[in-house]
Amino acid sequence: MGDNNEYKILTKIDYPSDLRTLQVEQLPVVCDELRKDIIKELSVNPGHLASSLGVVELTVALHYVFNTPYDRIVWDVGHQAYGHKILTGRRDKFCTNRKLHGIKPFPHPDESEYDTFCCGHASNSISAALGMAVAAKLHNEKRKVVAVIGDGSMSGGLAFEGINNASSTPNDMLIIINDNHMSIDKSVGGMRKYLLQLTTNDTYNTIRYKIANKLTSWGILNENRRKGIIRFNNSVKSVLTRQQNIFEGMDIRYFGPTDGNDVVELVRILRLIKEMKGPKILHIHTKKGKGYAPAEKNATVWHAPGKFDFESGERLESECNAPQPPKFQDVFGKTLLELAQINERIVGVTPAMPTGCSMNIMMKAMPKRTFDVGIAEGHAVTFSGGMAKDGLLPFCNIYSSFMQRAYDNIIHDVALMNLDMVLCLDRAGIVGEDGPTHHGAFDLAFLRPIPNLTISSPLDEHELRKLMFTAQIKGHGPFVIRYPRGRGSHVDWHCDFEELTVGKGRKLRDGKDIAILSLGPIGTEVSKAIMIAEMKSANEKFDAGSSAEAHQLSVAHYDMRFLKPIDEEILHEVGSRFKHVITVEDGVISGGLGSAVLEFMADHNYNVSVKRIGIPDKFVEHGKVSELYHLIGMDAESIAKEICDEVVKS
Amino acid sequence: MGDNNEYKILTKIDYPSDLRTLQVEQLPVVCDELRKDIIKELSVNPGHLASSLGVVELTVALHYVFNTPYDRIVWDVGHQAYGHKILTGRRDKFCTNRKLHGIKPFPHPDESEYDTFCCGHASNSISAALGMAVAAKLHNEKRKVVAVIGDGSMSGGLAFEGINNASSTPNDMLIIINDNHMSIDKSVGGMRKYLLQLTTNDTYNTIRYKIANKLTSWGILNENRRKGIIRFNNSVKSVLTRQQNIFEGMDIRYFGPTDGNDVVELVRILRLIKEMKGPKILHIHTKKGKGYAPAEKNATVWHAPGKFDFESGERLESECNAPQPPKFQDVFGKTLLELAQINERIVGVTPAMPTGCSMNIMMKAMPKRTFDVGIAEGHAVTFSGGMAKDGLLPFCNIYSSFMQRAYDNIIHDVALMNLDMVLCLDRAGIVGEDGPTHHGAFDLAFLRPIPNLTISSPLDEHELRKLMFTAQIKGHGPFVIRYPRGRGSHVDWHCDFEELTVGKGRKLRDGKDIAILSLGPIGTEVSKAIMIAEMKSANEKFDAGSSAEAHQLSVAHYDMRFLKPIDEEILHEVGSRFKHVITVEDGVISGGLGSAVLEFMADHNYNVSVKRIGIPDKFVEHGKVSELYHLIGMDAESIAKEICDEVVKS
Repeated sequence: MGDNNEYKILTKIDYPSDLRTLQVEQLPVVCDELRKDIIKELSVNPGHLASSLGVVELTVALHYVFNTPYDRIVWDVGHQAYGHKILTGRRDKFCTNRKLHGIKPFPHPDESEYDTFCCGHASNSISAALGMAVAAKLHNEKRKVVAVIGDGSMSGGLAFEGINNASSTPNDMLIIINDNHMSIDKSVGGMRKYLLQLTTNDTYNTIRYKIANKLTSWGILNENRRKGIIRFNNSVKSVLTRQQNIFEGMDIRYFGPTDGNDVVELVRILRLIKEMKGPKILHIHTKKGKGYAPAEKNATVWHAPGKFDFESGERLESECNAPQPPKFQDVFGKTLLELAQINERIVGVTPAMPTGCSMNIMMKAMPKRTFDVGIAEGHAVTFSGGMAKDGLLPFCNIYSSFMQRAYDNIIHDVALMNLDMVLCLDRAGIVGEDGPTHHGAFDLAFLRPIPNLTISSPLDEHELRKLMFTAQIKGHGPFVIRYPRGRGSHVDWHCDFEELTVGKGRKLRDGKDIAILSLGPIGTEVSKAIMIAEMKSANEKFDAGSSAEAHQLSVAHYDMRFLKPIDEEILHEVGSRFKHVITVEDGVISGGLGSAVLEFMADHNYNVSVKRIGIPDKFVEHGKVSELYHLIGMDAESIAKEICDEVVKS
Repeated sequence: MGDNNEYKILTKIDYPSDLRTLQVEQLPVVCDELRKDIIKELSVNPGHLASSLGVVELTVALHYVFNTPYDRIVWDVGHQAYGHKILTGRRDKFCTNRKLHGIKPFPHPDESEYDTFCCGHASNSISAALGMAVAAKLHNEKRKVVAVIGDGSMSGGLAFEGINNASSTPNDMLIIINDNHMSIDKSVGGMRKYLLQLTTNDTYNTIRYKIANKLTSWGILNENRRKGIIRFNNSVKSVLTRQQNIFEGMDIRYFGPTDGNDVVELVRILRLIKEMKGPKILHIHTKKGKGYAPAEKNATVWHAPGKFDFESGERLESECNAPQPPKFQDVFGKTLLELAQINERIVGVTPAMPTGCSMNIMMKAMPKRTFDVGIAEGHAVTFSGGMAKDGLLPFCNIYSSFMQRAYDNIIHDVALMNLDMVLCLDRAGIVGEDGPTHHGAFDLAFLRPIPNLTISSPLDEHELRKLMFTAQIKGHGPFVIRYPRGRGSHVDWHCDFEELTVGKGRKLRDGKDIAILSLGPIGTEVSKAIMIAEMKSANEKFDAGSSAEAHQLSVAHYDMRFLKPIDEEILHEVGSRFKHVITVEDGVISGGLGSAVLEFMADHNYNVSVKRIGIPDKFVEHGKVSELYHLIGMDAESIAKEICDEVVKS
């Protein structure tokens, strides 16, 4: 939050109703102050900068022209909604943005009546807004509904399904296409190119009547029909701009493109089209990072820049100067290139996340073998399926929570044909500040029931490399590797490749009293927990005056590596040697590793008590990963307590 | 299979290579014979008739012009591929189509190298074909790749994602849009309207040069640039036809529309465009049901007509003349209308299945409150979410296996906001002849981990009505009701409405030796199984000469009704009273009811042996439901055997 004294108007705006008391001429000042406020706040409290800066004028104009919250603004991807939050009663709380128990990273109706719908995943705004527009019509409400969608989100199939349906369902919705040629990375695909080329043409207005006259004299035009005229005008426009207008082809009125960073002009246009009947599109151009030079220059880096110095625009390094273990994503990105260099069947596929998953490393070195398909998770998987069917080996990398978008594609277009390909799920498990829309909580549970899949998760960077090496060997069928956001545990991450046996885990340490089975990097938390539990137990024995050595708590720990096929040898060993088992997974508690172990024990008549630790059956909020682990009982301390409790039972 | 003597040419064609030895002039005869063969065969062996008849000429032309199987034809939705099967080595086996161990209902690469990809779910062809086209390029193969997609499938977001990506990824793919204004029901949405209006215009060719000259003289056109010219020509075309061309707006060359039931013309055009570089679209018009008058008249009914009389075109009723219980879908459809009449918040949403799920009943009575959104499952759910957010109560009905397409929408656009709406999953569990792409095997497992969901399944039609009544009462959040394809068990299905307690099951019968917990209509199979087991046990005791009465097998049976929240009272009762429990569900064995029961028993330290019966962890083939149940151990006999085996263990 900037110093309140430096703002002339912003501090007087608590709600959009305050905004609407201003004169239009005052709005540019509001925009300047709002922009400054966002930048200052984000310099100390990291978040999504560039997209929110780009839509400052749009945000102000929308709340100025429309009667929010009665009218509905549906944001597509909440990155861009910081200005919206500040203007809708959350200015004072904005410093808690993305912090534990603070305001949510993405709009959510639970937080504010101005937040009309959840918007953590791209491309849902048009469908949701159409639902609201239809509800207004059925309720005879005069409510206006506006969807704000970026050009990046327009490549998502859901957005197309929404537009397709909007064109044939009676409604008066306004769709604003916020065109900044970006999603997080540069946006791609025909739709992007298409939007880019939809430019106004100065000659248009002067020539349209001349052509119209000609065509009418040739008997081609029927000026009586309104739709005919609209379409004629648009057609002339397309001739002049050498471009077709997709939207008017579907009978959605199209306006624009116009400068989306000119608030006065935006207000004028929105007022003009606000009352028009039928679905309509307003196409605006904005600059991602607008108003902050460093962000304007490199919007990808400044999408979520971390802390930075407001004045110099220098991004601040993390305070730790000691060498750190790499991020899992970087190990993935570098390893993928190494593997692609030795296996020419390998190709890379990412839906709009080349930087986020570090596939940009391979993309740079092998542009012809790396495919950024835009925000289109379903296509990414089916497209990979087609390549796999004809002999390539795709590594398709999609964040775990976005892979939910490609569920049927995994079943129908990959697993059913048992195709050789690798599905890499980055950002699996608790992701932290991005909150419930981004936690990769469900993947283990939703993937496990699918036949033919191999499902794995590496304990650390070395294991990730070995799993990737193993996955690219022919004949394994669809091979899932899931790993979390954030850093691994080895500064020296670069190990030799080694083929692992599919379906084989490993015993990290032996023990007698209880066995812990873990999957993935949460295993390092388990290792800490075991140390804590053993120490605690030793202290207690010592306090009790008993012979510490004789009764020392003894915990076995197995890293399962594979959820499917699960290591039956380990499970037989555990089932026959232990009375108490704890399973630990960074995934939802129902249906994943814990359930698999219970099923095995039941199927093989082992009489063991199994305690499952995982993400509870609720949407987990946002906060630091460590805070959230503590909150849901998955930090080392909590796990240690469970170990002690279980052993006491025996 | 028709009598071989009546065919002059068809019987000589075993593979497309035989077809390619013919003269073009002979192809119409091949088409006639192929069409007749399909109709005759389907009159006795039911399957998908109308769509396969519509594409007879296209099928012949494609295999004639392209060098299959080296060249790839990717069918979108395999309904239409019967002609393809007959021409590709499966003429003699076609009489086994859809039968147990017979040829598969939809193309599958495991069955034939001419089947390039699985195609049970709509809209995946373009993405898969693009993958193959890219693979060909990377392998330096001269292979041609053709995707054949219907206008109905074009409303699916995946198709758009594929086109969007095809326009920006180097490839020479041909996309054939087979436009028959239908999916199973009439196709809907802007894309359909758009395709319908894309008509050729006779004045076009005569006038284009005139206009071009004018515009060039005004300095608007740059004739040097190829793309500019293409676009200019198309733009003129749009002026003349008052229509934009979406595809050329995305730099995909567009050809058509042309008559897709004229095989000679199709061959001519395909030869013309076959070698052209870059992605291209050929738009053809065909008639669904073409060549069989009854099917031409009503393509929805003749989509899959059952048995019929070839000569008269009369559809044959099932042989049973006694009154039969209704189909679950009809109970749904009629009950929905009843509820909508008493609750004005209710709206109906279906993605292209109004007839299949019987929502057409409400649609007819309340057209403004019923929405067929086209093949667009993700949108159907998010659109419903938007309506629910603003106070309506959508009943969104989607076949279980297609709901896999809307997984993220359920999580992100419904459950996260805990919206009041009802998700009805028709065709849940084993569906029979449509096989693995259509079995609703995974829903229980993939839905259970989602927070806030209520998940239920009715034992019979009465329970379905009560669950639907309960679901529409305010405040329950997202409420899932899943029920199978086929008939229920009560001729007298129409019962009074009654509110059920959410999360409460019921004891159908008490017993002492073992408890069976079942969910959904599979419970009737369990009832039979219990009778068989008890009878068997009585006989055995009798044979052994022991006192039958004293040792009579005694089985308790609980109908759980709800998977989530699960009835903990029942589970406590079962956990404390029984040593042996069997769970039975018409869903995949991992992650559903059985796992939920195991989790509960483990969490509450009950020491019971739990045997889970459900769909095994593999893709189950096609066949009659009763045959498949037997195959996977879910028929009454198999369940009875499990009951006896479990009790013997004790």
